[in-house]
Order: sequence, then C-alpha cells, then structure tokens
Amino acid sequence: MKMKNLAFICVLLLSILSLNSTVEARIRHYRWEVKYEFKSPDCYRKLVITVNGRSPGPTILAQQGDTIVVDLKNSLLTENVAIHWHGIRQIGTPWADGTEGVTQCPILPGDTFRYKFVVDRAGTYLYHAHYGMQREAGLYGSIRVALPAGESEPFSYDYDRSIILNDWYHKSTYEQSAGLSSIPFVWVGDPQSLLIQGRGRFNCSTPGIAAGLCNATNLECSPYVFTVVPGKTYRLRIRSLTALAALSFEIEGHNMTVVEADGHYVEPFVVNNLFIYSGETYSVLVTANQDPSRNYWAVTKMVSRNNTTPNGLAIFNYYPNHPSKSPPTVPPSGPFWNDIEARVNQSLALKSHPGYIHPVPQTSDRMIILLNTQNRINGSVKWSINNVSFTLPHTPYLISLKQNLLHTFDQTPPPDIINGYEKYDINVVAPNVNATSSNSLYRLKFNTTVDIILQNANTMNVNNSETHPWHLHGHDFWVLGYGNGKFNVSQDPKRYNLVNPIMKNTVPVHLYGWTALRFVADNPGVWAFHCHIESHFYMGMGAVFEEGVEKVTKLPSSIMGCGDTKRFIRP
Amino acid sequence: MKMKNLAFICVLLLSILSLNSTVEARIRHYRWEVKYEFKSPDCYRKLVITVNGRSPGPTILAQQGDTIVVDLKNSLLTENVAIHWHGIRQIGTPWADGTEGVTQCPILPGDTFRYKFVVDRAGTYLYHAHYGMQREAGLYGSIRVALPAGESEPFSYDYDRSIILNDWYHKSTYEQSAGLSSIPFVWVGDPQSLLIQGRGRFNCSTPGIAAGLCNATNLECSPYVFTVVPGKTYRLRIRSLTALAALSFEIEGHNMTVVEADGHYVEPFVVNNLFIYSGETYSVLVTANQDPSRNYWAVTKMVSRNNTTPNGLAIFNYYPNHPSKSPPTVPPSGPFWNDIEARVNQSLALKSHPGYIHPVPQTSDRMIILLNTQNRINGSVKWSINNVSFTLPHTPYLISLKQNLLHTFDQTPPPDIINGYEKYDINVVAPNVNATSSNSLYRLKFNTTVDIILQNANTMNVNNSETHPWHLHGHDFWVLGYGNGKFNVSQDPKRYNLVNPIMKNTVPVHLYGWTALRFVADNPGVWAFHCHIESHFYMGMGAVFEEGVEKVTKLPSSIMGCGDTKRFIRP
Repeated sequence: MKMKNLAFICVLLLSILSLNSTVEARIRHYRWEVKYEFKSPDCYRKLVITVNGRSPGPTILAQQGDTIVVDLKNSLLTENVAIHWHGIRQIGTPWADGTEGVTQCPILPGDTFRYKFVVDRAGTYLYHAHYGMQREAGLYGSIRVALPAGESEPFSYDYDRSIILNDWYHKSTYEQSAGLSSIPFVWVGDPQSLLIQGRGRFNCSTPGIAAGLCNATNLECSPYVFTVVPGKTYRLRIRSLTALAALSFEIEGHNMTVVEADGHYVEPFVVNNLFIYSGETYSVLVTANQDPSRNYWAVTKMVSRNNTTPNGLAIFNYYPNHPSKSPPTVPPSGPFWNDIEARVNQSLALKSHPGYIHPVPQTSDRMIILLNTQNRINGSVKWSINNVSFTLPHTPYLISLKQNLLHTFDQTPPPDIINGYEKYDINVVAPNVNATSSNSLYRLKFNTTVDIILQNANTMNVNNSETHPWHLHGHDFWVLGYGNGKFNVSQDPKRYNLVNPIMKNTVPVHLYGWTALRFVADNPGVWAFHCHIESHFYMGMGAVFEEGVEKVTKLPSSIMGCGDTKRFIRP
Repeated sequence: MKMKNLAFICVLLLSILSLNSTVEARIRHYRWEVKYEFKSPDCYRKLVITVNGRSPGPTILAQQGDTIVVDLKNSLLTENVAIHWHGIRQIGTPWADGTEGVTQCPILPGDTFRYKFVVDRAGTYLYHAHYGMQREAGLYGSIRVALPAGESEPFSYDYDRSIILNDWYHKSTYEQSAGLSSIPFVWVGDPQSLLIQGRGRFNCSTPGIAAGLCNATNLECSPYVFTVVPGKTYRLRIRSLTALAALSFEIEGHNMTVVEADGHYVEPFVVNNLFIYSGETYSVLVTANQDPSRNYWAVTKMVSRNNTTPNGLAIFNYYPNHPSKSPPTVPPSGPFWNDIEARVNQSLALKSHPGYIHPVPQTSDRMIILLNTQNRINGSVKWSINNVSFTLPHTPYLISLKQNLLHTFDQTPPPDIINGYEKYDINVVAPNVNATSSNSLYRLKFNTTVDIILQNANTMNVNNSETHPWHLHGHDFWVLGYGNGKFNVSQDPKRYNLVNPIMKNTVPVHLYGWTALRFVADNPGVWAFHCHIESHFYMGMGAVFEEGVEKVTKLPSSIMGCGDTKRFIRP
C-alpha cells in the first residue's frame, strides 16, 4: 500500500472516531444576547444587564463530557463584556475562561463571541460577567452538569432544583466603581436587599425613594416559590453570587444534608442553616417531612458584617397549598451575624465523600503565603496581597505570554511571602507603607504541587477583619486546613488534613484566620485567583498564576483585539 | 560625488525643509485621559465623563494650519469611547473624524488612540464624544483656531472669550438610552438645568431628591462669571452642545453683533438675543457700554419646546465690581418659547460677509429631499428619513468601503425622495407604515454638487413638529434657503440665495418647514449627516454620505479592531 493511501485511511479512521465521540458527548449550543433592560428584582426599578431578557440568565443544562457552545452577542450600547464559566476548569481551552485581561480581550458592542468548552465533571456551577463590575449589574446564571447515563450519585433524591442567591444594590456599578476609585473613598454601604433566584423585596416606603421607581405590587418581585410534594426529597443546588454578602440560608423547620460542594461529593452532614460565600455552590438534600397543611419560609441572611440589609425571603410551598399563601409564622431570624464559630465549624465539617477521595499529594514543591491587607496607595483605599495591589493589564496575560509581548505587564513577580512576615502583627491596623500596585503574576513550574496560605489580617479599621471568599480559575484545590491567627510555617502544616480534604474552587478565609490550599499546576494556561467580592477584586485583591503556557496550543484570534494585540491587525 | 553622499545631502535638505514647515505650522500636542468622576455642575452630584478631570474638557487653542495631535487615553472601566472634532473638515484625514461606526472603531479601555489632523481654517469649533450617548455624559469641549499671524478679521475687538452652552440631565445616559429603546417608550423629559460653560443651578429643595446628592453651596455650581472692563469690546464665542434644547442667549441690557457662524464671517447684524441650536457656534461682539457700577445677568433659555427647564444664569461682571455680586435686577425672561417667527428671522438674517463670500455653484447635480418623520417600527418609537430609520453598522463604513467588506451593511441605498412625496401631508400624524431600520448610505459621485432639502413634518403627536439642528461632517454647506410648509421642487429653488449664502456645518430645520443646503462632494471619505439632538440620532435621525472613498489613502490600523475588521488580526 502506498503511503498516500495509508494516510487517507488514517484520516477516514480519525473521522469515524471523532464522529463516534460526537454521538456520546453532545454539543449544547446556546445563542445569547446581552443587553440593558429595566428590571425590578426587588421592586425597585433599575437598569440590569440581562441575557436573552433575563437576570439571572438562562440555565445551562448539560451532561458530563458535553461541549458547550455559547454564541454571545453583545448588544450593550458602548460597553464591552466577557463571561466566566465558574467552576469549569477549561482543560485544553484556557482561552475560553472568560476572564477579561487574563484570558481574553473584552467583547465589543455588536460582536458575537463564541465560547466553546467541555464540561468534564458533573456538578453545580455558575457563570457570570468577569469584566469591570458587570456581574453586579445582573449578568449571571447557573450551570448544571449531570452525570453520564448509567452513573449515579452517592445519595438519592426525587427531584433536582436550583437557586442562586445574591445581594442587590440600587446604585449602578458605574457609581460604585467611581466611588471606590475616588479620593476620599466612597463606599456604597450595605446591599439594599437579598435576592433568591433573582427575587427580593425592598421596602418601597423607605424615605427618599423617588416617585415611580419602586412598586411593591410588581410581579417581578413577588417571592420565589419552591414547591414541594409532601414526603419527597429534593436535591437543592444552592449557589451564591453576592457582590459582598456572606450568607446564611435556611428553610424554616427543615434540616438540610450537605452532599456536594463546588462539584465534589461531601461526606454528608446535617445543618439547620447553610453558610455560603460568593462563588461557592452546594447541593443539600431536604425532605418535605413537615406539616403539609402550610407553607414555610426560606430565608437568606447577611452575616459576617454588621449590616442593615433585611433578610431575603422565599416560600417553601407544600403542594397543593397555594404558592402565594404566606406561612403563618414569623420568618426565622437566622444566626447572629457575628457568630464566627458556627461559620468556621461548617468550614471544618466539609470533607470529601469517602468513596470519592482525590488523593492529595503528601508534600508540596512551593508554598506561597498570601497576606491579605487593606491599605492606602497614593491616597486610594486598596486591598493588597503581600503589599501588592493587583491590577489587570490591558493586554490579556495569556496572549502576552504566548505571543511574547512581555512588556505589557510588570515582569517582577510578586513575593511568595511578605518581607518581614515573622514580625507582621495581623491583629492591628498596619500602615503597609511599602504597598504598591502591580499587574505582575506568579509563574508556577508545570506539574508542581503548590500550597497557598491565605492569611487574613486587620483592615484599616481598629478591631476589624473581614471574610474573603477566594476563587481559583482553572483548578480545584484541596482544602488542607483552617486556623485562627497567624499561620505558623513550621507547626501548622502538621495539622493539615491529608486524608480526605474536600476539593473546591472557592474557599473563605475567616476573620483574623488562615486557610491552606494545595493544587497541582497541571492545567496549561493563565488563571486568576481572587477574592470573589466584586469590589475587593476591583480594589486589588487578587493574583494570577501562569503554568505550562508553552503547552497551550494556538490561541484563537477571537480573543484578541485589545491592548498590544492591536498590533496584530494587518489589513 | 558618490550617490551615497548625494542621498545624504537630500535627506539633510528635506530635514531642513520639514523643520522650516514645523516652524510655520506648529504641532499642538495634547495628552488627554478620559474617565468617570463625580461632578456637580448644577449642584446635583452625578457621574460625568471628564477629560483630564474636567467637563467641559480642556480648550484646544491653535492657529490656522496647525496640526493637532491628541493622544486620547481611555480610562473608563468597561466602556469604549470616540471623539469627534466638530467643524473640522478632516481634509486628507477622514479616519480622524472620530465618528464611531462611520470612520473608526471605538477606543477600548486602556488604549491610547492618536487623533492627528490639521485645523485648516480659523474659527470657532467644538469637540465631543461621538459614541452611544456619551456626549451627554459631559465629554465635550471647545476648539478655537486663530488666524495666521498678520491676517485679521473683518471686525475688531479688545478681548476674545469662549463659552459653551449645554443642557443637563440627572439620569444617566444608560438609563436614557435604555428608555428610548424600551417598549413602551420611556422619554426622559425636559433637562433639569441649563449650563453656561459647565455651570448651572438645580433647585436642591426639589422634592424627592435623595439626601446628600444636591448641595447648593458647592463651588462647582457657582454661576459662571464673565468679567469685562468698562468700555471694552469682547468677541464672545458661543457654542451649543445641548442634548435636546434649542436655546436663546442674551446679556441683560447689551446688544450683540453677530460676526461669525460655524467658522464663517457673517454680514454683521445686531440681536438682543441669539438663538443657537445644538452643534452651532457663533461669535458675537459685545461692548461693555452700560452702567459700570453694577453687574448684569447672562441668560440661556430653552425655546421651541414647551418646557419646565429653568433658565440658565451667568454673571456679566463689570470690573472692578465683585464677581459674585448679584445684579440688582430680575434676570430677563427671554423670548417666548413658541415665538417661531423670531427664530426663522434669525436664520434668514444669516448671510456671508461680503468680503468673504465663497461663490456657490449655481446649479446642482443631484437633489436629495430628506423627509424627517417620527413613527413606530416594530413597536419602538423611531425617527426616520424617507422612511429609513438610520442605524450604525458595527464595522465602520470607511473601513468596509476601503477593504471591500460590503456585506457589513445594507447595500440598498436609501431613497433620494420618499415614495409618494407629492401626496405626503406634513401637517398630520402619518403612520409611515413602510418605515424600516437600515444602515445603508448615500454614495455621492465625487466632485458633484449636491442639494439637500431637509423637510420637517408632524411628529406622532397631533399639531406637533420639532426643530432639528442637522450637522454635516467633513463639509461646510451653503444655506440656500428656508421655507414654511412643504418644499415645492419646481418653485422653491427659484427663491434660493445664490448670491451671498452663509456656509455652515449645522443648520436648523424649523417646525413644519424646510431648509435647503448645497455642498460639493469633494472631500474623500465617509461623512455622517444627522440631527444633533443626541436622542434623535440614537433613534435613527441620520444619514451617511460616501464620496471619493477610492481616493482615500491607506487607512491607519489604529481605527480598526471591531466588527468585521477583527478578521485582520493575524498574530
């Protein structure tokens, strides 16, 4: 046989094989249009960024191994956009992560951008804008990935239901971000309301609300109704995409069994209320085993900060009671906002399900201690990590690194540990006079094991520390441990859970405490790691990791067009 | 002499020559940063787009023949930008006109775009954003081009002063544009205040204003002060960049002699008040010849629409009186808003200065009658021209035409006259059922003479017609005449002023009337022609002319990167 014929047969064979895999793993094709519309999610009318007219946007429903294709049309007037697929690791498609400045240029008005990626693991995920502070303007939604046919979860339920929790501001994201950048600093304050699946309730009688802006009878702000059949068990997938708030969620009179966190099965444990931080997802099982003659309240409450935000309410409706029938009881008031112990205990309770343990490497190659501080730089209030307040470059790192445009960002890497760590007192207001702004990144050696210690500290206010939920793109990490006070490099690693740590993509660092994570730098690309509080990331609370970028195949030109990549325009 | 030496000498000679020309025509280099800041131009605090921290932005001061270089850095968070140099014809530099969708792609956040063009004629000009509705957000300023050394104007004065008039809304441009696109249509209503050189005064005691937003003692909203020395004569350059309002401007007790309009010398005439429409500029001479012991009011008033907007006030301050000394009189109340005759009379009074007549071609090659109507298209309220509501393409025409990307816009040209023009009744509400939206353009034969008849009509409201100031990019046009009612194709041209018509770049079409213009299509490029009311252009009240695009030299790649030009990205 001639070589030519052999080659032809090979091509034929490959075609058949790829056809075959197409049959097994479906392509789920979505066409989305992003635009501004007036909405009243909490009865107060404001501009909201919608997907196909909705906020939250359409839910992506897929099966493990499917390819998701989203053709995203930007119909905003003058604003660009980018969408991140939160919890999807983008293995082999680092350019589809949707992180403006890191993995792509923003999508211009009028453009249609194609996101194409594989959802390679069943679980509960999210999507949201990852550009400026657009997430807070309402551009967010759910991803639910089912197991392949024939596989089953290590728990059982009758129905699968999804909600997203959120907090809601009446000021526009422009006003908020301009305030954060102002000298003196202008802070937007507490959210006006908490939303459950896009619905909340602001008190329209609040003084100072202009006429016509708030309408308590608007159907858009009628409470979300979660209808259940008595006796049945529900898998409730709960996600948080708050701008700021740490939340507690509970269903009056019903326990919840936690079974999944960020796409990983949990050694089940029972809670009365679930603490959930921005960027986290959980599945809980709840059985409709209470008096079926009435409805019950579902409640979200803002915790961790002393606040004025009223609790968010939904109705847990026992069929066949009328869905709008108000429960006869006062809604549960939830845990005290400052009960830090309860929150830490939940963090400690999270372990991998025994049947689904991903063995954790017993040692690591590198330890990076990220000290989270708040301080002033040139008069502006910033968050800094090891005295570096993170800023995004205007040429996305992924492109800069692949195309050798290294002048587009600061080449001095940020430190693995802050100078003077031993003497740093996390319990007092520290001036951090050496803090600077930089868009430098951490370069990780491919396939090495990296430990990250998130170290919390006092803010610029006396006796104040805040909870920060950190989210890692492109990876899940093992959560090795939590501790109070300052991390002790020689002693604390001895207390790591190296047996059955849960894997997550988002984890809180508690007040004045530390959180230890481990991951293997085995996903070629450039990955953001940042506090998921929208304003905190805007103010510099983030970092970026590069790993194996030399293994990334040819970048699609669709992600280019901004910053220094404009030089690639050759008509 | 060797060839090498000869070449060296040539280079040397050329260098000296170019150095010489640099001395005669200077390069004026500006570095501007565009960003959002909180400002209180009328005492009410809102987000404003500033240039180098100011709104109005810095004034460009140049001499005829100078080259202006503006390095514009976009420091908005998620929004693009583009700036138009209003009144500058961009001869030889059509790509520098700053009209998003027509001559360039928008400038992305983080990018610095270089505008470079020659100001080839002395006069009073403007600059402003030409993207979405950003002009209304405060991105605007003045251009003043002086005569070459040794030349002088046909009038004399002691001092040269500049102001820009504007109207001001408290709602953001996002809210306004989303309202205009909504079904049902949401109209923002009358402006909250009128600004003189960026300063106005909103009544902070207005009910429904949230606490802390309005501060009557803020220095930003203290009245603009125009200080004069008794007996001296001032050239006052007056520009309007209102979003909506037609204005009257007057200085209590002082006559004004109109001497310049849109960069052209006028046969001088005296007015008590000057009517000025958005996009127009005038120079008036005013002599400080009144009782010098007191100050006087300068007043802008919204006319042509019945409105609730309070008059804008500034202080005409006779030195050495204290600038903040309030005039002892009640400010003049200005002309009646509906005194259309006075406005038409001013239009008719505008003639070219006898010593500066640009001879008008006595015949034209083509006549285009643009019928301005308001109607619904698919439920949305639109403005249409000959039943075509204009939309901008996402690939700028200039690039599409040069690079042969003709699929990026509708290739069916809009009509030169509406079908059924003879029977069209401009005095009634017409359904205009054939109206459609389109991004098609008019292609003009190079160097031909084109007549444009702007024909006004009734809006969607009974007994209502509105004034529209139309602005042409890339050209000045001769204003041949104005008339009441419907233009008569056979009779009205006989009444044209073909002797001393003024040349302008912006002209009103009065209620139920017509305005006839003539220009020579001799400036290779693609030029927008549109109603200068920000919301009207957004709603489709515009057209675009192409002429001699084949003569345009190589386009700079800096204007590319959006729409179909993304295909030019080849890393």
